[in-house]
Amino acid sequence: MSQSNRPTAYERLTARAARIATINEAASMLGWDASAMMPSGGGAARGDQFAVLAGIAHTLATAPEVADDLAAAEAQPPEGVWEQENLRLLRHGHTRATAVPGDLVETFARASSACEKIWRVARADANFSTVAASLTELMSMVREQAQALAPALGLSPYDALMDGYQPGITTADVAPVFADYATFLTTALPRAEELQASRGPARQPQGPFSEDVQEALCRRLSLRAGLEAEHSRLDRSAHPFCGGTPTDVRITTRYRTDSFHQALMGVMHETGHALYERGLPTAFARQPVGNAAGMGAHESQSLIVEMQACRSDAYLSWLGPQLHETFGGEAAPYAPENLGRALRQVHRGFIRVDADEMTYPAHVILRFRLEQALISGDLAVADLPGAWNEGMHALLGITPPDDAQGVLQDIHWYDGLVGYFPSYSMGAMAAAQLMAAARRDVGGLDAALAQGNLAPLLGWLREKVHGQGSLYGFNDLLRHATGKPLDPRDFEAHLTARYLT
Amino acid sequence: MSQSNRPTAYERLTARAARIATINEAASMLGWDASAMMPSGGGAARGDQFAVLAGIAHTLATAPEVADDLAAAEAQPPEGVWEQENLRLLRHGHTRATAVPGDLVETFARASSACEKIWRVARADANFSTVAASLTELMSMVREQAQALAPALGLSPYDALMDGYQPGITTADVAPVFADYATFLTTALPRAEELQASRGPARQPQGPFSEDVQEALCRRLSLRAGLEAEHSRLDRSAHPFCGGTPTDVRITTRYRTDSFHQALMGVMHETGHALYERGLPTAFARQPVGNAAGMGAHESQSLIVEMQACRSDAYLSWLGPQLHETFGGEAAPYAPENLGRALRQVHRGFIRVDADEMTYPAHVILRFRLEQALISGDLAVADLPGAWNEGMHALLGITPPDDAQGVLQDIHWYDGLVGYFPSYSMGAMAAAQLMAAARRDVGGLDAALAQGNLAPLLGWLREKVHGQGSLYGFNDLLRHATGKPLDPRDFEAHLTARYLT
Repeated sequence: MSQSNRPTAYERLTARAARIATINEAASMLGWDASAMMPSGGGAARGDQFAVLAGIAHTLATAPEVADDLAAAEAQPPEGVWEQENLRLLRHGHTRATAVPGDLVETFARASSACEKIWRVARADANFSTVAASLTELMSMVREQAQALAPALGLSPYDALMDGYQPGITTADVAPVFADYATFLTTALPRAEELQASRGPARQPQGPFSEDVQEALCRRLSLRAGLEAEHSRLDRSAHPFCGGTPTDVRITTRYRTDSFHQALMGVMHETGHALYERGLPTAFARQPVGNAAGMGAHESQSLIVEMQACRSDAYLSWLGPQLHETFGGEAAPYAPENLGRALRQVHRGFIRVDADEMTYPAHVILRFRLEQALISGDLAVADLPGAWNEGMHALLGITPPDDAQGVLQDIHWYDGLVGYFPSYSMGAMAAAQLMAAARRDVGGLDAALAQGNLAPLLGWLREKVHGQGSLYGFNDLLRHATGKPLDPRDFEAHLTARYLT
Repeated sequence: MSQSNRPTAYERLTARAARIATINEAASMLGWDASAMMPSGGGAARGDQFAVLAGIAHTLATAPEVADDLAAAEAQPPEGVWEQENLRLLRHGHTRATAVPGDLVETFARASSACEKIWRVARADANFSTVAASLTELMSMVREQAQALAPALGLSPYDALMDGYQPGITTADVAPVFADYATFLTTALPRAEELQASRGPARQPQGPFSEDVQEALCRRLSLRAGLEAEHSRLDRSAHPFCGGTPTDVRITTRYRTDSFHQALMGVMHETGHALYERGLPTAFARQPVGNAAGMGAHESQSLIVEMQACRSDAYLSWLGPQLHETFGGEAAPYAPENLGRALRQVHRGFIRVDADEMTYPAHVILRFRLEQALISGDLAVADLPGAWNEGMHALLGITPPDDAQGVLQDIHWYDGLVGYFPSYSMGAMAAAQLMAAARRDVGGLDAALAQGNLAPLLGWLREKVHGQGSLYGFNDLLRHATGKPLDPRDFEAHLTARYLT
């Protein structure tokens, strides 16, 4: 409060932001419930609840007095670097919320919903032409949105879309990084496959693996990684995710009784997301500057836990005996070397969500290139399947047998989401870059992992990433934590060490 | 919509009511989560979420344009009995929401929260004097509220409070009903005790009873009673309740491994509440006229399922073998006659929530009399413990050994809730009255219960109670369903048949 006891413009803005964030927390909890708990008959009412909460949050965010308060606060900025960055982010959010005309937002929402429905049919029939007209209409609206956002944000249209998911990095930054990786892959992938073939397949542990036993194990490992029981839950849903709020994080996964790998690594992945939320600066809770730094930053935290820490030789040397004790049976499949082979396989596949860490970026790079062409207008929607298949062949040397295993596989575009995909691989590369920096900064990091102990890594992440909230954009966050912006070489070195030696 | 395509005042009111109801649905779901799922660390944030949602709902309900729309709609009422009653209920709700000055609402909320905290200490110490001053202050605010509501509603101050929980019945209706019951009890209770003693104690089934097995049984019986799996869940919480929304009802209970009676009958009780919510008129969902008719009506539905149906000789004759099959062991404790003795015992006790169906109304009558005296000013808070103990002795012939087992046992008054208690026994009596009417109207009702089949009863309740929403106040609902207003004689006849023959 200011001395006069009347709130300043900045204080009014932060109070409003906290109110909006609290409404979004409620919606987030209801989203978790809808996926993990809700009986099917509750779906229609839940949809209404989401719509009303979103409408209230939008009305609060775009109320006429916000523009006045922003101008007043910018004329007399608050003290403190965090407060000033928070104000900048409040302005940024307001610009994004108001740059696109309301009627375009509404027609887009309807077109998105319609296109998604048609996509479900098209994918089931593996027939892109079914959805082509609907996607053409939707993409023209996405372009229109991007063109409305671009001048307001001082970004190119495609960068304006990327900014909605991961601020602080542009196509100019990402394109050379991805190009470098595509080149790396042309030689690395065949060599990794060759080495993998020479070593023969891993011995698979014998199931069945009880779902309850898997769940108890996953929860135990998640807590051991640093998540607090009194601030988290682990439940089941069709699609694993990390939801909830920073003081009440909800992780979900799914189990299959013939294998525990997916559930276990899935939970450690979501635990990485959860630890990020738990480590955000509480002094700026419910303020933009106190949020996670973006989707790429978030993915870096899930992948540093899953890929960098939990699939490391050190951690697997501790994990193997734990698994054997949990599931019993023969010891050989749980020997660390065998476990490593089972949990770290490269494979050229058509489906992104099934991809290993080496081939995954190829899927993202393909989508990143096609998205730019779609937004610039260089690529017509009608030509998308052909461009997809050519691009997949160029990157991974394989051609999808049909569109269901190609251009139709992901929901994102058919919902009108463009600019999100790059976050996944920015995150993977940032995870390797952060891990390399942590190894330099923190002594005994791998020795700790060899005892199932993530505390040294987590301590470093708390300081360098989690505790920084959104004080920095993506590349500046990396600069402060690692001394350089996003750089593919740490990731390539990680893959080289893991798959090529 | 009106022909001009501009919404009428009534349409604006119903749209607003639906929006408020949808926000309250979100809050209800979060309330279930807080009790059944939330880790402790989420409590503070959840409190903020409740406060923000309640604030938004209150702002919508009391916005200046509501008064204008109400006046305009009343000048040109909608067509249809339901619509007209809905408009009357919208007015009624607005009157209640606006009659009490805003600053009194706020100071009351703070005083209530403070008094509840002190009560927890006082109860732990069994020392009423600790909380006397705080309760005196709170009760004076309750009186002030009642006096503000009374002229606006055209009711006496105490009736204005009762109306907040159960509309359509007044002290003038309830007092003679309760007096009749108190007289009945003076002879019935000793006779029931005598007969019970002459028959000796029931044989108790041998535990332990696995919580998971109990839960599966409870869920099965709840679904068999008519609840749909796709519109409900059964979970665990410290205090059993029925929450959620009409299309997504959430029941909770708690289990103990030495006995299954409490959990099982608790779930059937909550199933009665749930079936009411499921049977409300969907055409008026999220409108006042589409809601349950009040707390007394709601309790009538939980008790008609639990007390009238599931503890009946007919149902127990079916349930006994089910229980024996579920839990195994000796057959004798599950014989219907023995099960009846185990599940239907009278006992003069100090604690309301542990009371049997015969003595329970005595607890309510005591509170009903004391509440009236507190609100009229005839009884000072300082004299409450003495009045409590005298009243308890007059009604049940027992005197609490300390205030923790007396006036301090229930949270309601210390939260400032006055006028709620009568609903419990109105519900119990209405349940017996409705059951008697259903037996007259529906052939084979008990024969169906003897096969574990509640469908004939449920069909009748759907038509006579659930499907009527809030079209009628409490006594009119009973008049339409049973031909008379609330009448203690059916309840007394039910107890006579069950405990005195």
